[in-house]
Amino acid sequence: MARKQGSHADITGPKVRDAALRLFARHGFAAVSMRQIAAEVGVQAGALYLYTSDKQALLFELMRDHMEELLADWQAPDAPPTDQLEDFVRHHIRFHLGRPELVFIAYMELRNLTPENFAVIEGLRRDYEDRLEAILRAGQQSGVFAVPDTKLATMALIAMLTGVTTWYREGGRLNRAAVEGIYWDMVRKAVAA
Amino acid sequence: MARKQGSHADITGPKVRDAALRLFARHGFAAVSMRQIAAEVGVQAGALYLYTSDKQALLFELMRDHMEELLADWQAPDAPPTDQLEDFVRHHIRFHLGRPELVFIAYMELRNLTPENFAVIEGLRRDYEDRLEAILRAGQQSGVFAVPDTKLATMALIAMLTGVTTWYREGGRLNRAAVEGIYWDMVRKAVAA
Repeated sequence: MARKQGSHADITGPKVRDAALRLFARHGFAAVSMRQIAAEVGVQAGALYLYTSDKQALLFELMRDHMEELLADWQAPDAPPTDQLEDFVRHHIRFHLGRPELVFIAYMELRNLTPENFAVIEGLRRDYEDRLEAILRAGQQSGVFAVPDTKLATMALIAMLTGVTTWYREGGRLNRAAVEGIYWDMVRKAVAA
Repeated sequence: MARKQGSHADITGPKVRDAALRLFARHGFAAVSMRQIAAEVGVQAGALYLYTSDKQALLFELMRDHMEELLADWQAPDAPPTDQLEDFVRHHIRFHLGRPELVFIAYMELRNLTPENFAVIEGLRRDYEDRLEAILRAGQQSGVFAVPDTKLATMALIAMLTGVTTWYREGGRLNRAAVEGIYWDMVRKAVAA
């Protein structure tokens, strides 16, 4: 893949990804053509294939990199379950508020992944969910949490926290730290023994 | 609009809506043509315009009817706030689990509504959110709930409850009643004084 190396690819590659992200979020994956992506980047349609094999690869890489970044960006601290949970909640909100378009695509375009690509993304999502569930189970075992079903609680909390991206507006009534605090208060009580 | 009346329209109209719903959910609004919708219904493309003015009208009517049905289907019972909240939670889960494609479209295709249509849908959503917030405020005032921000709690709870549609599978580990019970337990604790 020598032709993907070098300073030209280093600059244009991220531009292609950004353009694909913007266009997929605005119009939906199925409605966007490689020609449109090329026009958004400012290159000829043929030149796009120096940077990506096809539209499916672009979508998959956006979703995979998003999940891998999320997994790399957060490790459970060496701390009691309640502190781990607070750290998870605050990080989840911060991370996702910074990437509303990726959050939107990660949910909306699952249907457009090939079965093989879907399996990879689903595996990464499960890894992330497992981290939260491990915290809930640890708290359950030590008696600080009372969660009737740790799997459902995991799905419920992730949906609640990710939902912030649908209504939060920068410069609105509450800043990010205030939002984190209010959500943490609800999560803390929801799982408390 | 006499030509939209009569038994032929009565049968074909709902078929057009169902076809549009299925295709929008599968491919996204922007990627679906009126021709495809007609083919799915089994009529000529021109015949579609007996039932709808255009694709935007189809999308808007799907989203508006979904919200109006939701609002018509639930009224706060004459009961203490905790009972009202339980009734809201259980109804919300039941209603949305029965309509996963509409839930998906209602979130995903907001971006494709005209500004006028968006304002109508946003108004209906606000009416629904206001009902939940009124319960939270009533409970706050009577001292049974402790919610630092009733607006944020409203958004958080709706996102958490609606998220059920993304993972629930009929015939899975838990039936709907069990799911309702587990979510109600988390909501009850999350807002408790």
